[in-house]
Amino acid sequence: MKFSTEELIEGIQSGNKRLIGKAITLVESTKPEHRIQAEELLKKILPFTGKSIRIGITGVPGAGKSTFIENFGRLAISKGKKVAVLAIDPSSAINKGSILGDKTRMEELAKEENAFIRPSPSSGFLGGVANTTFETMMICEAAGYDYILIETVGVGQSEVLVSDITDVFLFLKIIGGGDELQGIKRGIMEMVDVVFINKVDKDNLQKAKNTRLELKRALDFIPSKEKDWKVPVLLGSALYNEGLEEIYNKIDEFISLKKKTERFDLVRKQQSEKRFEYWVQEYILSMMKRDESLEEAYLQHKKNASALVSNPSTEAKLFVEKFLNKD
Amino acid sequence: MKFSTEELIEGIQSGNKRLIGKAITLVESTKPEHRIQAEELLKKILPFTGKSIRIGITGVPGAGKSTFIENFGRLAISKGKKVAVLAIDPSSAINKGSILGDKTRMEELAKEENAFIRPSPSSGFLGGVANTTFETMMICEAAGYDYILIETVGVGQSEVLVSDITDVFLFLKIIGGGDELQGIKRGIMEMVDVVFINKVDKDNLQKAKNTRLELKRALDFIPSKEKDWKVPVLLGSALYNEGLEEIYNKIDEFISLKKKTERFDLVRKQQSEKRFEYWVQEYILSMMKRDESLEEAYLQHKKNASALVSNPSTEAKLFVEKFLNKD
Repeated sequence: MKFSTEELIEGIQSGNKRLIGKAITLVESTKPEHRIQAEELLKKILPFTGKSIRIGITGVPGAGKSTFIENFGRLAISKGKKVAVLAIDPSSAINKGSILGDKTRMEELAKEENAFIRPSPSSGFLGGVANTTFETMMICEAAGYDYILIETVGVGQSEVLVSDITDVFLFLKIIGGGDELQGIKRGIMEMVDVVFINKVDKDNLQKAKNTRLELKRALDFIPSKEKDWKVPVLLGSALYNEGLEEIYNKIDEFISLKKKTERFDLVRKQQSEKRFEYWVQEYILSMMKRDESLEEAYLQHKKNASALVSNPSTEAKLFVEKFLNKD
Repeated sequence: MKFSTEELIEGIQSGNKRLIGKAITLVESTKPEHRIQAEELLKKILPFTGKSIRIGITGVPGAGKSTFIENFGRLAISKGKKVAVLAIDPSSAINKGSILGDKTRMEELAKEENAFIRPSPSSGFLGGVANTTFETMMICEAAGYDYILIETVGVGQSEVLVSDITDVFLFLKIIGGGDELQGIKRGIMEMVDVVFINKVDKDNLQKAKNTRLELKRALDFIPSKEKDWKVPVLLGSALYNEGLEEIYNKIDEFISLKKKTERFDLVRKQQSEKRFEYWVQEYILSMMKRDESLEEAYLQHKKNASALVSNPSTEAKLFVEKFLNKD
């Protein structure tokens, strides 16, 4: 990293988008020397973090997430807020082009002075690189963004990741789609705080109302994450700015409730504990991987595993014991 | 475990389903004393493993996976084969009841002498307990099962897990569902070896043919995993035993091709290497978790993280350094 930690922090605090981007690239890196600088940076910006509202947004491809984020983001900006958009993309490299690579996405929002859009780091199918969205969010918060919108594609594990770092979880739904998605919906339904049925117009209004009824019925069977909060199902059209004000207010209401019941801080604390556990895993594995004195043993055990000298788990156990018992 | 390793092995090799079940419970356990016995067991049965055809089966809820497995399994049994069915269920505890808990599932197959059905261990949403499906499969192979059918729900990460331990990956599709699932389909399409469009009848035959055409077009854009293999898209009805013989033959054909090109053994070797890497992670983390001398430090760093004394990743780094540097 050719920028010093001080330069990066100054850039973050003065809202320099280029340097914010560089700082994010730094915390995304898994290189040991970058991790040291990243920890230094995160430590120093910590007092300036935590003040945003962290919003997770999910929905299947085609639900209109980009349009929603674009127009919701502009609405928030019109109310004097600063908005950052991050994405968690669980799709493979091949998918990426078609799902998230569209260069015209959020064009209008991107032009706004008070908006910052960061695509997700390239990675394999769910994982491969460390998930640093939380740390990216910290940087955006230190840069003064009031709303952090974290987008994800609706396919399971990524929702859990997003739910674990946000204050409110929004589910974008389109009408129809039938029963095929029931399983996925169920998984999401347990995490969701607000539902928005998107792409509603005069012609499909009745269908939308039916979908709302179905969703409400489904939600009745699921214990709400927050006491005294009945997950609202709103109708609208992100493209035509219909229903966005209502969503904005619902989010506000939800955050106020969470703060009143002290769940807001409590949940954030629990999330920090999970982050700690996540990073313990990341660090221990990276320490092991870069211990050169172990490389030969690692390769030998791996070879034994692939040649079925013994089974993979036995070879792994032998290797780990070596790693932990060496001087 | 009240059975000795010898008793379990004898039970496995004599095809005693109760003892096969006990052995699977043993390898699923994360308790240290169970892991030791599990490794011992796996080591001893290793020479008797590897001889089955390992089939991964995916599809959204409602695609008819259970019915497919039931009737495909019975077809294989009618050809003199022994069939084991395992499930990877990525859904949460709440989902479980509705997706996989149906007690009438595979009733007919379960009655067969030459079938063994094992539901997935209870776990959280993708993870929580170690994924031991591979080790469960080893036990089934040692017990002489010729076909291992591994079922999963179509939501991302679980497909990767299944694809990483099987020889052939089968995708069950139903007609319609629209564009909503495109993103998920793309992810799956890169892994799939054979596609079966299920629930086809006289009335929807034309629609099914259109879906096949669309799928074939989509597949044309995706490089096949196996050279000289064009992913076939077959139509049929698992419920009425239509198309199952063709699937059986296609799988046979695919396995023969993989063996001819030596990809069969090569891919299995690569899979064993991945299993090794997976277990290295599992073991190192479990060793850490059960090191009582570290418990206090772990809790203190975690508390620091949640109280934001410093950020979670910094606290994690400090803890891991303590763990690795202690005598």
